[in-house]
Amino acid sequence: MLLPALYYFYLMKRILSCLLISLSAAPVVANDSLTLKKMSDEIMLRGTCYDNLRVLCKQVGHRLSGTPAAAKAVEWGQKALTVAGADKVWLQAVDVPHWIRGKETLKFQFGKDKTPIEVPVLSIGNSIGTDGKILSSPLIMVNSIDEFNALPAEKVKGKIIFFNYRFRQDIINTFEGYGDCGKYRWTAPNMAAAKGAAGTIIRSVSTGLDDAPHTGSMRYADTVKPIPAMAIGNTSADMLEEKIKQGTVTAYMQSECRMAGTVRSYNVIGEITGSEYPEHIVLVGGHLDSWDVGEGAHDDGAGCVQSIEVIRTMKALGIRPKRTVRAVLFMNEENGLKGGLAYADSAKAKNEKHILAIETDAGGFSPRGIALDMGEYEREQITSYRNLFLPYGVYDFAQQHGGADISPLHKQGVPAAGLVPDPQRYFDLHHTANDVFEAVNHRELKLGAFTLTALVYLVSEHGLKSANVQP
Amino acid sequence: MLLPALYYFYLMKRILSCLLISLSAAPVVANDSLTLKKMSDEIMLRGTCYDNLRVLCKQVGHRLSGTPAAAKAVEWGQKALTVAGADKVWLQAVDVPHWIRGKETLKFQFGKDKTPIEVPVLSIGNSIGTDGKILSSPLIMVNSIDEFNALPAEKVKGKIIFFNYRFRQDIINTFEGYGDCGKYRWTAPNMAAAKGAAGTIIRSVSTGLDDAPHTGSMRYADTVKPIPAMAIGNTSADMLEEKIKQGTVTAYMQSECRMAGTVRSYNVIGEITGSEYPEHIVLVGGHLDSWDVGEGAHDDGAGCVQSIEVIRTMKALGIRPKRTVRAVLFMNEENGLKGGLAYADSAKAKNEKHILAIETDAGGFSPRGIALDMGEYEREQITSYRNLFLPYGVYDFAQQHGGADISPLHKQGVPAAGLVPDPQRYFDLHHTANDVFEAVNHRELKLGAFTLTALVYLVSEHGLKSANVQP
Repeated sequence: MLLPALYYFYLMKRILSCLLISLSAAPVVANDSLTLKKMSDEIMLRGTCYDNLRVLCKQVGHRLSGTPAAAKAVEWGQKALTVAGADKVWLQAVDVPHWIRGKETLKFQFGKDKTPIEVPVLSIGNSIGTDGKILSSPLIMVNSIDEFNALPAEKVKGKIIFFNYRFRQDIINTFEGYGDCGKYRWTAPNMAAAKGAAGTIIRSVSTGLDDAPHTGSMRYADTVKPIPAMAIGNTSADMLEEKIKQGTVTAYMQSECRMAGTVRSYNVIGEITGSEYPEHIVLVGGHLDSWDVGEGAHDDGAGCVQSIEVIRTMKALGIRPKRTVRAVLFMNEENGLKGGLAYADSAKAKNEKHILAIETDAGGFSPRGIALDMGEYEREQITSYRNLFLPYGVYDFAQQHGGADISPLHKQGVPAAGLVPDPQRYFDLHHTANDVFEAVNHRELKLGAFTLTALVYLVSEHGLKSANVQP
Repeated sequence: MLLPALYYFYLMKRILSCLLISLSAAPVVANDSLTLKKMSDEIMLRGTCYDNLRVLCKQVGHRLSGTPAAAKAVEWGQKALTVAGADKVWLQAVDVPHWIRGKETLKFQFGKDKTPIEVPVLSIGNSIGTDGKILSSPLIMVNSIDEFNALPAEKVKGKIIFFNYRFRQDIINTFEGYGDCGKYRWTAPNMAAAKGAAGTIIRSVSTGLDDAPHTGSMRYADTVKPIPAMAIGNTSADMLEEKIKQGTVTAYMQSECRMAGTVRSYNVIGEITGSEYPEHIVLVGGHLDSWDVGEGAHDDGAGCVQSIEVIRTMKALGIRPKRTVRAVLFMNEENGLKGGLAYADSAKAKNEKHILAIETDAGGFSPRGIALDMGEYEREQITSYRNLFLPYGVYDFAQQHGGADISPLHKQGVPAAGLVPDPQRYFDLHHTANDVFEAVNHRELKLGAFTLTALVYLVSEHGLKSANVQP
């Protein structure tokens, strides 16, 4: 019988590797388990990340790159890292785009109705507006990119195109659903522009059952003449879908949004210098900028305060990590990634040795796992810590992605990891006015901070061995 | 070397059991995996549990046993099970206690201040009131039962005792924390009464960082003369703790709560009759009653609508289960368990064969696992389905408890299981005015319903084999 024979071989291999791990790692694991419990207690009982998030959300508020609020957030981050006890805190200059929303309205006129009705709307970030003028045309609805591609160019030319694609609720991991649906925000406006459309409206990239429009980033292709692009909430989109079936709908777009050049801003960085290998850096970070609605609580105030909590917890417990632990609050993740790019450029120029970069930018919800984007050898080492994390509900080490801010560093070969919180609520709130402090739960946020602290600690203690090098 | 030798033996045992499972279960698992995906799609795209919950919360509202709202909830449950497509829907009579809260106030006077200040308060369920009169005495604070036990009787006699024990935020599984802290609600008032106290106030059994008082159940011991018992929120408790350090605090309790006899009520039951083994019952249930504040959304409207969704989903997909699938909406879980007791009595009298009873009463949050309270043989069978559940984020099969409503059935030897949702938010909301529909997320609720549907389906298809019997 082939199957049992193969299975036997497979299990023998597992036995050998388990034996090796258990023999080499057993004493380490016992100590680590105690250290992790201390970290968990420190964070759950005395953690400051939730209070820090309240200050960021309520005293700074939303903080789009290039705005005075973003500058205030930089000050907040510097102070918070200093209070947390970082050995060094500094700013890293980044020039960021400054997009201004201004006033915006969207109205629809149904058939022969005299009065257009107005719906909640958010222009898509980085998009151009109508210069405050009214752009109107009959609305053409398509349910997918395929449907759009099937339209003859003359049906598109000069028209406002409504991309009515729904976020797929049947996909359990909403981040996969985001990948599927997100292209209607990133790509569809360019496709419409290329075919001569006058403007685009999308059904928001949203799992929400409400009417909150979700903004987010887009970028015009060099080959197209930019056209305005707006997002509406699911309830308005449902209504529009019904009305279009019944007859002609005319859309009236009006907005002032525009790019307003470049502004000097900063990544905020704090670190604890490693006691044995100070040149080896374990990075943990989130992004300090947010969209210009709500309070950027889950996206990504949560990631910022969790990264700061890593530093605070080690200091509070008197842990001096063997390798340097660095918290980075990146600027401009939302509409340019200039912070992540500047950081990676600087790291390369200084020949800094990052042994692991971890991003937390998926919401302040209950942690479920750690995504690992790295070689198989490194992955096996981190996965071998799984039993240390299980008592904290962190079990999923199978996903393979890091995060946007650390992606330029990852391209240089740095192993990347990402915190994986429960994903169910995130895209109800993401990039909306509802992403506020009150939507974050104190225990969930803190458990995420613990997960990051534990991972940072384990790698700062034991290093991260690649198949080739032994750092 | 002893360790490797033992480890080798252990692994050989694992190999044998894995081989047996993989050989016997492989084809079943492939089909089951497809069926589960269909169930997930049906629920995530067309599920009605969230809409059902809205109706229960907004049109019925809170529904303490014995109230007109509880009677209305029975009607709602009957209708919802009928609409879901159950083959049979019926009521099972239960006589329940009727506790009435009435008006209640709690005030404190600090030192020589003239005006007492009022704080938010909820009397503990089933407790007696002050007959509307004011009960006042200097407040004696203890931080634990040990501290209380160390008090001489003359310091307790005639006084109001404040049990200032905090819910332990360092315990990751909040249900364990509830077990630890809950005794201050269940037991402390009896201890105080036994020692001659005039009344008790407890710091709420609450992980919340707010001032919401949490009610819940208590029962006077036969040996004590009942005294009033109230709960205050964490913020008020913090304030009180500070004030008592500074000097004398006088408490003024006033309440009208009382027991008002017994009322005829009902468990609501619906089932799909099994096609091959109709006499074998797989039960899934939650409880229909709630406390008399908020809307009983997580506790346990969620469990009711999820249990109904199990029936609806099977019917919508045209699945005729081999064994009978029965959804039970139990009455009076909160302050008497009369529904669970009546159900078990009836099952015994009719000699009904329940092969598994599953309870969902831990909130409508993202499911993480299924707790199994049953023999090792049955546990291994259900745990062997783990890979079928993993794509849905359900990984934890290690917990060992069922639920209160099914505990009388379990005492008769029926294997018990419980849905394990993420526990972090539950005790912020549990038994408070904040447990409302808006606190439940549609995707999380539906994923829980899916988990139950999948488990019910697998056991209804494959049976649940005990070491002795083969049903």
